[in-house]
Amino acid sequence: MKVGVIGLGQMGSGLAASLLKAGHEVTVYNRTRARVEPLLAQGAQSADAIADACRGEAVFTMLSDDAAVQRVAFGDGGIIESLGAGSLHISSSTISVAMSGQLAAAHADRGQRFIAAPVLGRPDMAAIGRLFVFAAGEAGAIDAAKPLLDAIGQRTFVVSHEPQVANAVKLSCNFLIASVIESLGEAMAFIARNGVDRHDYLAMLTSTLFGAPIYTTYGKQIAGGTFSPPGFAAPLGLKDIRLLLQAADDLRVPLPLASLLRDRFLTLLANGGGEALDWSAIGRLAARDAGVDVVSENLL
Amino acid sequence: MKVGVIGLGQMGSGLAASLLKAGHEVTVYNRTRARVEPLLAQGAQSADAIADACRGEAVFTMLSDDAAVQRVAFGDGGIIESLGAGSLHISSSTISVAMSGQLAAAHADRGQRFIAAPVLGRPDMAAIGRLFVFAAGEAGAIDAAKPLLDAIGQRTFVVSHEPQVANAVKLSCNFLIASVIESLGEAMAFIARNGVDRHDYLAMLTSTLFGAPIYTTYGKQIAGGTFSPPGFAAPLGLKDIRLLLQAADDLRVPLPLASLLRDRFLTLLANGGGEALDWSAIGRLAARDAGVDVVSENLL
Amino acid sequence: MKVGVIGLGQMGSGLAASLLKAGHEVTVYNRTRARVEPLLAQGAQSADAIADACRGEAVFTMLSDDAAVQRVAFGDGGIIESLGAGSLHISSSTISVAMSGQLAAAHADRGQRFIAAPVLGRPDMAAIGRLFVFAAGEAGAIDAAKPLLDAIGQRTFVVSHEPQVANAVKLSCNFLIASVIESLGEAMAFIARNGVDRHDYLAMLTSTLFGAPIYTTYGKQIAGGTFSPPGFAAPLGLKDIRLLLQAADDLRVPLPLASLLRDRFLTLLANGGGEALDWSAIGRLAARDAGVDVVSENLL
Amino acid sequence: MKVGVIGLGQMGSGLAASLLKAGHEVTVYNRTRARVEPLLAQGAQSADAIADACRGEAVFTMLSDDAAVQRVAFGDGGIIESLGAGSLHISSSTISVAMSGQLAAAHADRGQRFIAAPVLGRPDMAAIGRLFVFAAGEAGAIDAAKPLLDAIGQRTFVVSHEPQVANAVKLSCNFLIASVIESLGEAMAFIARNGVDRHDYLAMLTSTLFGAPIYTTYGKQIAGGTFSPPGFAAPLGLKDIRLLLQAADDLRVPLPLASLLRDRFLTLLANGGGEALDWSAIGRLAARDAGVDVVSENLL
Repeated sequence: MKVGVIGLGQMGSGLAASLLKAGHEVTVYNRTRARVEPLLAQGAQSADAIADACRGEAVFTMLSDDAAVQRVAFGDGGIIESLGAGSLHISSSTISVAMSGQLAAAHADRGQRFIAAPVLGRPDMAAIGRLFVFAAGEAGAIDAAKPLLDAIGQRTFVVSHEPQVANAVKLSCNFLIASVIESLGEAMAFIARNGVDRHDYLAMLTSTLFGAPIYTTYGKQIAGGTFSPPGFAAPLGLKDIRLLLQAADDLRVPLPLASLLRDRFLTLLANGGGEALDWSAIGRLAARDAGVDVVSENLL
Repeated sequence: MKVGVIGLGQMGSGLAASLLKAGHEVTVYNRTRARVEPLLAQGAQSADAIADACRGEAVFTMLSDDAAVQRVAFGDGGIIESLGAGSLHISSSTISVAMSGQLAAAHADRGQRFIAAPVLGRPDMAAIGRLFVFAAGEAGAIDAAKPLLDAIGQRTFVVSHEPQVANAVKLSCNFLIASVIESLGEAMAFIARNGVDRHDYLAMLTSTLFGAPIYTTYGKQIAGGTFSPPGFAAPLGLKDIRLLLQAADDLRVPLPLASLLRDRFLTLLANGGGEALDWSAIGRLAARDAGVDVVSENLL
Repeated sequence: MKVGVIGLGQMGSGLAASLLKAGHEVTVYNRTRARVEPLLAQGAQSADAIADACRGEAVFTMLSDDAAVQRVAFGDGGIIESLGAGSLHISSSTISVAMSGQLAAAHADRGQRFIAAPVLGRPDMAAIGRLFVFAAGEAGAIDAAKPLLDAIGQRTFVVSHEPQVANAVKLSCNFLIASVIESLGEAMAFIARNGVDRHDYLAMLTSTLFGAPIYTTYGKQIAGGTFSPPGFAAPLGLKDIRLLLQAADDLRVPLPLASLLRDRFLTLLANGGGEALDWSAIGRLAARDAGVDVVSENLL
Repeated sequence: MKVGVIGLGQMGSGLAASLLKAGHEVTVYNRTRARVEPLLAQGAQSADAIADACRGEAVFTMLSDDAAVQRVAFGDGGIIESLGAGSLHISSSTISVAMSGQLAAAHADRGQRFIAAPVLGRPDMAAIGRLFVFAAGEAGAIDAAKPLLDAIGQRTFVVSHEPQVANAVKLSCNFLIASVIESLGEAMAFIARNGVDRHDYLAMLTSTLFGAPIYTTYGKQIAGGTFSPPGFAAPLGLKDIRLLLQAADDLRVPLPLASLLRDRFLTLLANGGGEALDWSAIGRLAARDAGVDVVSENLL
């Protein structure tokens, strides 16, 4: 298919590469030119303007936040203005449920089609087309997107006919991961105070009931106090919990554990944690509150 | 080895059976006689008094709580009075860190040996000797207990030379599980309000990052609202979180997520949840607070 | 002075009346005409359009939320377009810190003056010019507003030279009140479970250390379960806590008690509490969670 | 009346002095002799043993915690053994509800009378007989104690016929005060981040809705970061919140704000706060989490 990709961060670049590998005709657009070059070498075409990336059957957006999507979609010369009637916008960014709803409405007004298709997986999985995709939107639009979604992910879950519900599901997954981080952080603060080595403790956990990769990956970071370089930076963690709480607030769903996580991220960022730290660094705040000795220089 | 087992609930009975299967000479004691019979058929001998279960090289206790251990260990004719010098008490009950410390001190005073060896695993695992064992105490005592621990568990982790630390580790594991329950409960309340079927949602989770058995097992119960019969009753969940918080309080470790869990268990028990409900029923309280329709008659 | 008043809810009507009483020349504007009449009888003039209320030296806005201010200030024919250079906009609405900042910037661009002057006090205090006023903005602008602020309040506190800081102070006051409500709610749930009558308990509190009107007023409502008609409706309580948390989030200030309050308001609204209930109704949720018998039909 | 007073800390000494001033015949007992002398000068008699303080019509206990009461009441030669049939034990210590219940039962067994009469007020109020007294127990016992309670307090509230309920009421009052401290701490952290001086802010609060002494007293300490010397030391604050939570747990009453306070006290104590700090020091933890500059050397 003829498809555009807007937003060439680590995730967007991987996504474009996967589409190329699957044989699609890909036009890429990025605000800063440097990120475009490697994809040209892989066969992509370069768009000078957003509109140039909107001339195919579909255009992906993989952007950092609501503000970027607002600019790219609703700005002058943006996607809403540029996309042809019947063409498809696939939004893979982790954005707010509300923004996803606004996109759905605006596209419908223009006779364009829209699905939300946020993904689960780190950049290395994006690069090899092994993401998990949560897709939502009208059945016809999802069917049309299928060859593209197959190219970027190992599996697609159709979540709902309402696009924004896919964003809700994505946000809930990040919440579940952050909950594991917090619980490990508290358990390790307690265990360290009992004189047990955190790495030994983690080995016990992962050898028994907690063998899942989430526990291994984040447990190692918390035990070692090694949060740099970040796989997923702390401010992004805050952003996603904030988006979850906003969506939950709109639906009047109180989420006390999510509230606790938000306070943890704010504490982390207020005390020097930022872009340079992985979001798992909130897993050391329980030890800080407990006055447990800090073991690493990488720590706040 | 010649060994006593005191406390023949589901866990203690399984433990005694595993010891018998491994060829040990087992004497069992239980306050109510009925639970003794099945083990006699498997080759155990019956003790009429606690003291009669203390005549071997070692005696296990697998009791429900601190009060039971207090009675059996420190009461008239109890283990402290009855156990021979140099003999070993293996405490496998999930009891308080403080009580474990008191046992350690009392046994040391008498020249007896003591290890804490709480276990991870449900009754069906106990019955086939496949528990995980967290053992702590003096190296010599743990070595002496090895043939017995090998009989009851698939693997033993030596946690510390201080017995009560094993109890701390055990309590922290139950905390980690309860944290998963709470996080699933909140996520499902949110997701249900978004119109997604909870079982479909769970299938997505367990097909992606949350493939571990904890998520599958508890997720199914929360999604279906099916909490009876309990695998681990709600009051036991409260007990263990309470013991964790007490131990953490003694060490001045604040655990806000554990505090949240305690409040959830109290809410559950105050609203009709009790012995008949699995502890995972706290996973429906987020939905209750959100006013989400309740799907099952098994629910509070 | 010649002054406009936009927004004639209970608070705005009281404010206009106080200005009239103090001898100012007042032009009023309200979206729905009915609320205008009583003020005409008191000597006010009626504006047919927002612009007509902007022809004096100053214009007050007393509106329900950010959306209303957005419309009235930034919409076509709104205050930003209509106010003369050098004229003054006094924003007394309880709105977001961010919106107050946007107003400040937009007025500065146009050479208009702007102060935020949110107030503390119920409608009956507004009606007799006995509000407390938190004013912030440039010193010259505040001086210019002084005769007007003196007319509406018993006392004006100058908070900062940045207008939006006055909004932050106002929100923090509502947070402090809501905290008293929550603490009373928890204490009364506990005390009721101990068999003490809530009204007797309240009498003890207010006779000893808690003699302040906040405790008397809200304590009586919580003890009696009488939350209708509302003095300040529950959705407004949620709104203000939400605005506080957003402002605190922007400054990276974690506020765990405010997070708890937000969850309480969401629970209340999700379970049938709404416009018809006073915000103090969150003070019965602790009793609900504790399974304490509910004493009144007015309760959720 | 002939009355003993056991426990001559600041509160107990004030209580004994007030009884003497009212003309009662007072015998005092304290573990360390030094605190006895000043009272002898005021006309008290000294008891060499607990039993010697139990020979009158009544004996007060004003001790620091459950452990001290356990020793003094239930130990060899303690009150239970020594008090005459029909004589009265008045327990004014802030102890657990459970311990108060045990005292009630033990005294009843011996044909002795028992009331709980915990007090509200600082040492300076105790010294001049201006405490508030929460009394609970059988009506006859309370009547008998009336001349004594009148001597120590400005007012007595009869709470219940069950002694331990008075302890519950007392604990709930300390919870309400600690809630004010926490709410002020959060509000001031937020306000300081907005660039407002904390003392100016406090002046606004106490001039408007928050004129009560609690706000003035604790607000000043938090604003100034001046927590030494303590009026009520931080570990006592933790103790009382812990007792409240235990009593609430027994009754299955979840108290999330109390849980938050407990975590605050633990954080304070784990980070160097202790005997030398007033319990209001928890009111600076919100600022610490927010990374707000600390203004005083007295701070952790």
